[in-house]
Amino acid sequence: MRILVLGGDGYLGWPTALHLSNVGHDVAVNDNFARRGYDVEMGVDSLVPIAALEERITAWHEASGKEIASYVGDLCDAPFVHEMVREFRPEAIVHFGEQRAAPYSMIDQAHAVYTQTNNVVGNLNVMYAIADSDRDIHLVKLGTMGEYGTPNIDIEEGWFEVEHNGRRDRVLYPKRPGSFYHLSKVHDSHNIEFGCRIWGMRATDLNQGVVYGADTRQTKLDPRLQTRFDYDGVFGTVLNRMVIQAVLGHPLTVYGDGSQTRGLINIVDTVECIRLACENPADRGEFRVFNQMTESLSVLQIAETVKAEFPGEATIEHVENPRVELEGHYYNVKHSRLEELGLKPTLLSTTLIDHLFDVVERYRDRVDVAAIMPTVRWRETASELPKTASALAKT
Amino acid sequence: MRILVLGGDGYLGWPTALHLSNVGHDVAVNDNFARRGYDVEMGVDSLVPIAALEERITAWHEASGKEIASYVGDLCDAPFVHEMVREFRPEAIVHFGEQRAAPYSMIDQAHAVYTQTNNVVGNLNVMYAIADSDRDIHLVKLGTMGEYGTPNIDIEEGWFEVEHNGRRDRVLYPKRPGSFYHLSKVHDSHNIEFGCRIWGMRATDLNQGVVYGADTRQTKLDPRLQTRFDYDGVFGTVLNRMVIQAVLGHPLTVYGDGSQTRGLINIVDTVECIRLACENPADRGEFRVFNQMTESLSVLQIAETVKAEFPGEATIEHVENPRVELEGHYYNVKHSRLEELGLKPTLLSTTLIDHLFDVVERYRDRVDVAAIMPTVRWRETASELPKTASALAKT
Repeated sequence: MRILVLGGDGYLGWPTALHLSNVGHDVAVNDNFARRGYDVEMGVDSLVPIAALEERITAWHEASGKEIASYVGDLCDAPFVHEMVREFRPEAIVHFGEQRAAPYSMIDQAHAVYTQTNNVVGNLNVMYAIADSDRDIHLVKLGTMGEYGTPNIDIEEGWFEVEHNGRRDRVLYPKRPGSFYHLSKVHDSHNIEFGCRIWGMRATDLNQGVVYGADTRQTKLDPRLQTRFDYDGVFGTVLNRMVIQAVLGHPLTVYGDGSQTRGLINIVDTVECIRLACENPADRGEFRVFNQMTESLSVLQIAETVKAEFPGEATIEHVENPRVELEGHYYNVKHSRLEELGLKPTLLSTTLIDHLFDVVERYRDRVDVAAIMPTVRWRETASELPKTASALAKT
Repeated sequence: MRILVLGGDGYLGWPTALHLSNVGHDVAVNDNFARRGYDVEMGVDSLVPIAALEERITAWHEASGKEIASYVGDLCDAPFVHEMVREFRPEAIVHFGEQRAAPYSMIDQAHAVYTQTNNVVGNLNVMYAIADSDRDIHLVKLGTMGEYGTPNIDIEEGWFEVEHNGRRDRVLYPKRPGSFYHLSKVHDSHNIEFGCRIWGMRATDLNQGVVYGADTRQTKLDPRLQTRFDYDGVFGTVLNRMVIQAVLGHPLTVYGDGSQTRGLINIVDTVECIRLACENPADRGEFRVFNQMTESLSVLQIAETVKAEFPGEATIEHVENPRVELEGHYYNVKHSRLEELGLKPTLLSTTLIDHLFDVVERYRDRVDVAAIMPTVRWRETASELPKTASALAKT
């Protein structure tokens, strides 16, 4: 199967490309290296050193004998996207190619506008490329569990049946997300659902939980195949960050009382979910939604798990929550559809966390301690517009 | 009360500014004349000739003795928006300043991307200007009834109570809009609801029906105060277009079987709704939604009403529906909240339609017959990207 992975140089895009190539698909990756650029902007870096894209592709060829094609360019450049899709002629497009950090989108006006413009325009261009060249192409789009927020009712997979004033309908599940980033994914979902109606697009929208883990079977084959591991206050996610704090002997920082709950998924399950979605495409005109997560844990439970597994001493410290979110909320998420397709969940376990401690120990000299704590606060905005605001808003 | 009207040079923005000024509010208008630019791009023009903004403002001063301030600039220019809000210090911002035609957004990739970028970025900039300068400013935002689509259950005003698997919550009403334009308004609504949560913004989101009518008490005072009247296949709306077809002796064109239903509102009620919303602001942190319409009619009923009222001969012709929408659907919309604030609906009547026939008769020499029929089809895309695509996507 011919599969184009957008954002194929990123934390998940790269291991996904390797996994799909490994099982025999004909894979191409696209990236504009925006994620590497954010590191430069923020003055941070991946804990695990990563090779350049061409070096990665060469290493994969050496390790597996397989080829991965690459298209370097910006999804906001419509002619580039059209040309890429016409040339590669994918049967599925896996779309990881968006700015994906909530705190980054909340820095100030310019970062909010950049995140929504970059994500929404890039996705519209992908949709138009499909509509213009081949409406049979299956779009597998990455979204986030954070799109739903924390409703007081069960979270269904994208759609739900409602009865209201004695009448029934199947409607889109209402969303109340928690950042301008999460909102950009809600906008994408609405745009794609419309594309399915008017153009008969096939789409799978994946509401993914917080991903943790450092590697997959393929990324471990050669140091040049490693994927990034972020731990900073902007791009780092909760479990990875706490593992680093434990190894460094710092307190594990819990935002607020830690009762806020997250859907989680291991990186090895993420790449497998994408394979399952590609190999079992949505029907023509179908907007299909899967909740791509395997277990729910509160932030405090995650901290307690890391603390319990850490071989040395670890303490937990509560800090003011920089986000605006409910604590102590109801959280019951349906996530059976990927398991129905064959996913065998890899739950958080002692073995997995031990392995993460090893990875962090190996690269502990690369940790920038100052980068760990949160710096972006949801209730604030930049008090003055940055000098780059106008320029950024135009990009 | 100090009220800033964004898009104050447009079909509704201008009469709203006059109405608010007339009742004694201190009004400023903002516009970048994008709407006049679309006329040039499409090669069409308002049926009713309109004066330049400064001429309008002068005429209003002569007619009423009142001043209206003006700020000419683009809402996508964040520093301009911040400066305008800091200088005028409004208590309410009425936001009409978006691209508002569904067919325009469906022309091709470039127009879809332009519509969503222009609308979403402009609105984000307004939100940030409020958050940065004065979070007490009440944002009165124009949306559209088209955001809801045509669900098989009653349409509530923005929020609804659901019971699901034995639990209850008040959730945002699910939306399945019918064009990239309507989608841009859904995106705005989600962004604003988030702004209310994190910044304690006050917001009123108005889901407005199709507006018809040519004038208000104030626009009739002087020819230079007239507002635009669009009848072309891109910017013209159903009732106004059919009145023109009747006067010209053309068949009234009904898309499809005409059973698709629209919420309608007269222009004199629109300006009154805005006054009521401004004078009765939302609470701090409240995201309030009103359905700003007064009656529901099917497209065929509208045609039959125009045909019945027209003093001469009129015929009805069904043409292929260029849109993708349900016909014969359920449509029951709640719209009591503005009436609870004091709105006295002006329903479609013989007098009103007779007046519209008079207006069209007066300017019939200005009609461009070729512009009336629909040219944009929802299932199609531009087969090739226009040469301007890349440039437009960057703006």
